[in-house]
Amino acid sequence: MAAKGGELKLLGVWDSPYVNRVQIVLNLKGLSYEYVEEDLLNKSQLLLTSNPVNKKVPVLIHDGKPIAESQVIVQYLDEVFTGTGPSVLPVDPYGRATARFWAAFVDDKVGSPWHTILFAREAEKKADAASRIIVALETLEGAFKDCSGGKDYFGGDRFGFVDVVLGSYLGWFKVFEKMVGVRVLDKERTPLLAAWGQRFAAAEAAKDVLPDDVDKVLEFLQKFLD
Amino acid sequence: MAAKGGELKLLGVWDSPYVNRVQIVLNLKGLSYEYVEEDLLNKSQLLLTSNPVNKKVPVLIHDGKPIAESQVIVQYLDEVFTGTGPSVLPVDPYGRATARFWAAFVDDKVGSPWHTILFAREAEKKADAASRIIVALETLEGAFKDCSGGKDYFGGDRFGFVDVVLGSYLGWFKVFEKMVGVRVLDKERTPLLAAWGQRFAAAEAAKDVLPDDVDKVLEFLQKFLD
Repeated sequence: MAAKGGELKLLGVWDSPYVNRVQIVLNLKGLSYEYVEEDLLNKSQLLLTSNPVNKKVPVLIHDGKPIAESQVIVQYLDEVFTGTGPSVLPVDPYGRATARFWAAFVDDKVGSPWHTILFAREAEKKADAASRIIVALETLEGAFKDCSGGKDYFGGDRFGFVDVVLGSYLGWFKVFEKMVGVRVLDKERTPLLAAWGQRFAAAEAAKDVLPDDVDKVLEFLQKFLD
Repeated sequence: MAAKGGELKLLGVWDSPYVNRVQIVLNLKGLSYEYVEEDLLNKSQLLLTSNPVNKKVPVLIHDGKPIAESQVIVQYLDEVFTGTGPSVLPVDPYGRATARFWAAFVDDKVGSPWHTILFAREAEKKADAASRIIVALETLEGAFKDCSGGKDYFGGDRFGFVDVVLGSYLGWFKVFEKMVGVRVLDKERTPLLAAWGQRFAAAEAAKDVLPDDVDKVLEFLQKFLD
């Protein structure tokens, strides 16, 4: 598929936050791309040769050149397509550093424990991971207050890097709630993030990307938990 | 301390790879800075207020504004001090994406298992982590071949992001060798990296930064292992 700025192909799975955040940024920037759904139990040769180190999705292939790791891809898109749609990272270096700090925090303190909830065998480890996610979101509530400046998003008036990185987990938060029985973005505990989550999920760039059918996601995950 | 481009203060501990990589970049760029050695068993108020989320070193304070997380700091320095000394990250976005991919790989596949070797109680977990580091370095041997283009460094003719991130572990590799009894950058297994490691450790920006007294590092670590 020819696109302004070159041919873009995304290898992904539909319910991965890491894939979804790349899709959201492609949407934000109005970039057309070819999407290839991968079967993680039977990975394509294209995936294996494009990301031989981690063999994971997402992989973005831009004019034949593969880029892996979702946060790396988002920054790449932002740096290559500077004039196309809004910037995801702030222009000033201090703002960029702050956004990178919180984006790393999200994947470390929200994403990693989520994998423990899914894949750990011991109930105690799962419960501990769930508690850590809740604590991390309370920290992020404070970060939202600092970063947003009273506006709608971490990025201010529009989606920034932290919005995209955290927002891509919103579909999985529903799964967490069904599995663990605790509301993730609770209106009492994290009122700013609860309202932010609703805005994010309804926004044009995200609404058709985030998975909303909890049972379908659970069914998908079940294949890897057996 | 007044410095060109503003006042720079670095909170660190002398034998941390994460601190050392920031020092190496400050040296590369010829930036003067005030160094504050932290006592991790009795952290300063300045550290606790500058990095309230992780309470970890390094923290760089630039004109009163704190930046945490070593890879974030290195990128910040590179973006702020663009005209000061060489660039650490490549200028072209694909090169930057590749450097970020490998830098993340290093901290994930070399740094994280190292913490397991230090802090896990079970001998089996330690042995598994040691093996994973050795495998990761074999992967990095291939990456070096691809990235360096036959030149001296991952960054080509000069230190790049991956050099700084991986090179900052060189002091700890000696500790690993003493603790585990396996050579990390073995001339048979990873000949390119073995030669690269010698060049890196001898280079002007790194030679006075990397810890070289294994027993002193072990004594330091012992405080946290008791």
